[in-house]
Amino acid sequence: MAESSQKFQAKKFQAPKGTRDFYPADLAVRRHIESVWRQVSINHGFEEIDGPTFEHLDLYTHKSGPGIVSELFQVMSGKDAEQLAAIRSGGAAPYALRPEFTPTLARMVAARAPELPRPIKWFAIPSHFRAESPQRGRLREFMQWNVDFIGDDSPRADAEVIATAINSMEALGLVSSMVRVHIFDRRLSEAKAAAMGIEGEKYIGLLWIMDNFGKLSEERLRAEFNKHQLRSEDIEKALAYAQLTARVRAAGPLTTETARELGFTVEMAAPVHETLRHLDSMGYGGWCEFDPGIVRGLAYYTGTVFEIHEASGAERAIAGGGRYDNLIESFGGPKLPACGFGMGDVVLANILKDKGLLKPPEEYLPRPDAFVIAANDDVAARVPAIVADLRRQNLHVRQSYKTTRNVGKLLGDAGKCRARYAVILGAELNATPPRVALKDMDSGEQREIPLSELAGALRAPAGIPPSLEGGG
Amino acid sequence: MAESSQKFQAKKFQAPKGTRDFYPADLAVRRHIESVWRQVSINHGFEEIDGPTFEHLDLYTHKSGPGIVSELFQVMSGKDAEQLAAIRSGGAAPYALRPEFTPTLARMVAARAPELPRPIKWFAIPSHFRAESPQRGRLREFMQWNVDFIGDDSPRADAEVIATAINSMEALGLVSSMVRVHIFDRRLSEAKAAAMGIEGEKYIGLLWIMDNFGKLSEERLRAEFNKHQLRSEDIEKALAYAQLTARVRAAGPLTTETARELGFTVEMAAPVHETLRHLDSMGYGGWCEFDPGIVRGLAYYTGTVFEIHEASGAERAIAGGGRYDNLIESFGGPKLPACGFGMGDVVLANILKDKGLLKPPEEYLPRPDAFVIAANDDVAARVPAIVADLRRQNLHVRQSYKTTRNVGKLLGDAGKCRARYAVILGAELNATPPRVALKDMDSGEQREIPLSELAGALRAPAGIPPSLEGGG
Repeated sequence: MAESSQKFQAKKFQAPKGTRDFYPADLAVRRHIESVWRQVSINHGFEEIDGPTFEHLDLYTHKSGPGIVSELFQVMSGKDAEQLAAIRSGGAAPYALRPEFTPTLARMVAARAPELPRPIKWFAIPSHFRAESPQRGRLREFMQWNVDFIGDDSPRADAEVIATAINSMEALGLVSSMVRVHIFDRRLSEAKAAAMGIEGEKYIGLLWIMDNFGKLSEERLRAEFNKHQLRSEDIEKALAYAQLTARVRAAGPLTTETARELGFTVEMAAPVHETLRHLDSMGYGGWCEFDPGIVRGLAYYTGTVFEIHEASGAERAIAGGGRYDNLIESFGGPKLPACGFGMGDVVLANILKDKGLLKPPEEYLPRPDAFVIAANDDVAARVPAIVADLRRQNLHVRQSYKTTRNVGKLLGDAGKCRARYAVILGAELNATPPRVALKDMDSGEQREIPLSELAGALRAPAGIPPSLEGGG
Repeated sequence: MAESSQKFQAKKFQAPKGTRDFYPADLAVRRHIESVWRQVSINHGFEEIDGPTFEHLDLYTHKSGPGIVSELFQVMSGKDAEQLAAIRSGGAAPYALRPEFTPTLARMVAARAPELPRPIKWFAIPSHFRAESPQRGRLREFMQWNVDFIGDDSPRADAEVIATAINSMEALGLVSSMVRVHIFDRRLSEAKAAAMGIEGEKYIGLLWIMDNFGKLSEERLRAEFNKHQLRSEDIEKALAYAQLTARVRAAGPLTTETARELGFTVEMAAPVHETLRHLDSMGYGGWCEFDPGIVRGLAYYTGTVFEIHEASGAERAIAGGGRYDNLIESFGGPKLPACGFGMGDVVLANILKDKGLLKPPEEYLPRPDAFVIAANDDVAARVPAIVADLRRQNLHVRQSYKTTRNVGKLLGDAGKCRARYAVILGAELNATPPRVALKDMDSGEQREIPLSELAGALRAPAGIPPSLEGGG
């Protein structure tokens, strides 16, 4: 890169507000969550993809309108005078950091639709960025797991997507009394809105009000309505609808009468009930509830919508998603039905922590197979070669860089990094054949073995089956 | 996020120039490389960290000077009117996408230096970004593996860092005749430069000329020299030095006489020889060569410098690094010696491909444990529940979404996704107890087992030991 003076003036820096530094134990926890997400995705037949961290800005405005620009981190090349000039003359930057993955996914599907095998089942676990004020559960950079099932318009696809989300929470130790999956169908709210004369842009306004009902005050909701071209009477209707859904939700299972009040018939609710029935047959019925209060704020959903919340409702949503049957086409692809969800790491980690479902962070760090100790100066010079040899055999091996030959002290260091075995090199290393002492750090048992058998002994199964908690 | 109209006008988009879309097989190859990087790092006792994707711009100008700004992607919040106003009035954006990891690492070490155990051995595998024109081996977004050993100033630390880099290449199938590790010591070039009267800013210019000698024409090097405050006679000296190092390199092993010509004594070369001796004892001597032509362009190196190149020299460097004993202090931390390297995925993948060391990309995709087939409509309805049950037991299970009950055709689909087993559900599923047919897709052998034993049978070891190629 560029050159500079050799002399620096010392200066302390901080991470940008709303971003995170992941020290080893912090990252080990994140990797634990990510590896569950990845393994669960793979188990459910999804394949991993990735895209650019920044995209053309208009990929996002195309999907969400120009209002999105203020919520994005804009990106421009420092090399490109034209880009800078465009911004200085009042324009926007040409790129934006990815605020969500769906536009990238839709672009990738559209680009290769003819050659992709159907259905397309993809997942991704990249960083996302939002230019919002950081607060509990909301950062400016966060990890988000995205799962999408494309090319199948049946409730079984919705159910499989939702089952994938639930299975990940199950694998992380959550149970159905801790988190709830709220499921609804956009077609039902759309029918009710149409019956109230709320359509088109106004319907988007209603979605916004529904999505924020209970989060913002009614006063605030009323104040915002102008943004959404709702007349005063429309917003009162929307608020009444939101209040009604809250009442229906509190009243327990849906009846023919409450359905009628909500503006739909049992027939109209058949797809969402079919999705729920599938989830029940998969053993996930107990996690799910039909919830007419869930509509999702995004305009592009066309059918099933769902959100996963901590049971008390105290936190922001853990995940949200639904069916978006028109989106791929709008990105220049064929008409392909699709559904999917996004689950962020921030709210999820907060809930896991609150429920006591995370071990002390250090326990997520990979355990060394061996910690090699030199018991005297004579053998110390041979440590690097022995360690290098074990590492070439794909073993995780540490050593002490201290000059002390106090074996007790060094065993303490081996214990601190949670090594499975300590390998103690002493006078027997000069015997024929050379021998080493192998101490099982869990049982405390110590035995002497030939150096030539060391790698095999370290590789012997430790009695712990490979689990989802793999990490490394 | 923001709301918008429900109706989209279809539009096709492309990824930004110099960035990549990773479809499943593409990402599987990248994950293969990353998982080798990760496992090798862990084996060598390094712990993984991560930092923000964007940092304050001055984190980079602090280390590399204001010239770096034009090589960065600048980032600003769309929400922050002040940031935009600053840019419009001629300033720079407040943030930049990470062009290299070292400044983040130095910032993180400085922030917690007192509490971090020593030595600090960290690695990271994040995305990096450079606002350069894309060309072979150089993209605008790329993955880079960073390995750093902090708190040890001895050649054994340099050797361990270099051994980590070599072991990764070895694990990927490269051998010492394909890639060469070129090692030098900045103190030797600095002494020679001082003897020629080239010091301070001028020395940075000499480093730049040395670093680009053989890459750019001598004419071009001369034309650039003004940038680096070199007088015409200085640049001729620098070019003569670069030519000399090329001659020395071509002439084979270093002699006392060639050392004298290069301006240093055997004593001065002791540390780099000690590093080479360590590498030799670790079994990596055959990969390495002393190369006075390697100085690295970056100003902050203080000792050992090294680069890894494809043996013919045809490609850009695979990796580069060295010792930077003053950098942590310059970021407000304590005086801590350090050395490390960065290895990008782009050049490495090109070389692996050229050497035939990558399998067909599809073979890096995770293999399903089972592909479940319904042989008749009667049992088809039970597929989702059986599949869900196996997945809850942490098995990778696929199913057909087709309506055909042609088992031969469906076995073809099972083969296409490389499933280890096909599970065929037929009339025996209604027997007591229910039974299924299990077909080993590798051997072709088929047997009938009770449904209750299915998960166990799928989990039975397939005879393939866990290897570095883990992937998922």
